Amino acid sequence: MKILEDRIRRDGVVKAGNVLKVDSFLNHCMDVELFRQMGLEWKRLFADRPINKILTIEASGIGIACIVAAEFGVPVVFAKKAQSINLDGEMYTTKIESFTHKKSYDVIVSKKFLSPDDHILVIDDFLANGCAINGLIELIDEAGATVEGVGIAIEKGFQQGGKLIRERGIRLESLAIVESMDDTTGEVVFRNN
Amino acid sequence: MKILEDRIRRDGVVKAGNVLKVDSFLNHCMDVELFRQMGLEWKRLFADRPINKILTIEASGIGIACIVAAEFGVPVVFAKKAQSINLDGEMYTTKIESFTHKKSYDVIVSKKFLSPDDHILVIDDFLANGCAINGLIELIDEAGATVEGVGIAIEKGFQQGGKLIRERGIRLESLAIVESMDDTTGEVVFRNN
Repeated sequence: MKILEDRIRRDGVVKAGNVLKVDSFLNHCMDVELFRQMGLEWKRLFADRPINKILTIEASGIGIACIVAAEFGVPVVFAKKAQSINLDGEMYTTKIESFTHKKSYDVIVSKKFLSPDDHILVIDDFLANGCAINGLIELIDEAGATVEGVGIAIEKGFQQGGKLIRERGIRLESLAIVESMDDTTGEVVFRNN
Repeated sequence: MKILEDRIRRDGVVKAGNVLKVDSFLNHCMDVELFRQMGLEWKRLFADRPINKILTIEASGIGIACIVAAEFGVPVVFAKKAQSINLDGEMYTTKIESFTHKKSYDVIVSKKFLSPDDHILVIDDFLANGCAINGLIELIDEAGATVEGVGIAIEKGFQQGGKLIRERGIRLESLAIVESMDDTTGEVVFRNN
């Protein structure tokens, strides 16, 4: 998606250790008009899918997911990263590892909000090794719901997450796929879609 | 706001310990069309204020803030609850206590995203004792920015947070103020605005 790639080139910052900082528009300060354009693009890409709910994970996925959900006209459910005293009763749980935070944590969704009738679009800001997305897909499988697709803002194409998800036959639409980046020059190279 | 009060009466669940569960539409499963109606209401209420940015705190404030920001045509900044390796450089910090999680944590915002030029609307899902909102106001004060107002979905009117914020002369617009609730009958009584 050209406007996202252009924005990454303009405002993204490449750091050592394959870190791409996009906190000025995607995951700390959030450009909701850009999110709306992304929502319109995913709506076009998933037009043939009977999506009735969007699933994401706290925290940085929530903003994108909500704006996208407004375009789809469906609700959002976000998976929580730890047990809260306000989350009682039965829930689906899985464990995921965070590349960013270098630790693993439990992820939960109340059973009230995922059911076999649901046709889910999974949305998140980043895809690298795929641990977060695979965790969300596990929760959907536990519920007997259908994964209609996965929408990612920025995929790190040089890590394995995207490849593994596509090999499972899951439709993955990443709006920008970073093929390589260089923290000495700041250059970001995108995959031609 | 009548549609929010009606929704709380219909789908909210009163639990012992003054807990009001609204996870089916506000802070786990999220009804983005309701959020849009809330955004329109805050836009009407704060029409005289030169708001250029919305500040919220992860995680459950983010969804509401983004949909509201789309109505205002401004970006969202969300305060983070712990240090991330992706958040380098200088940041504003404060410490807040969580009523829900019964612990205190550091809250941070990058200095890049709050400046003396900013006129901020603070948005969050709940206001009880006010610790989270007061923490966000401290961050805004640290930055030398202006608090134009605070928009809360559900205020627990029987706790002190709202009273203390109003006494400081800060404009606070809570769309539903719970005066009392009863976990044996499930009844919720709202303050007449």
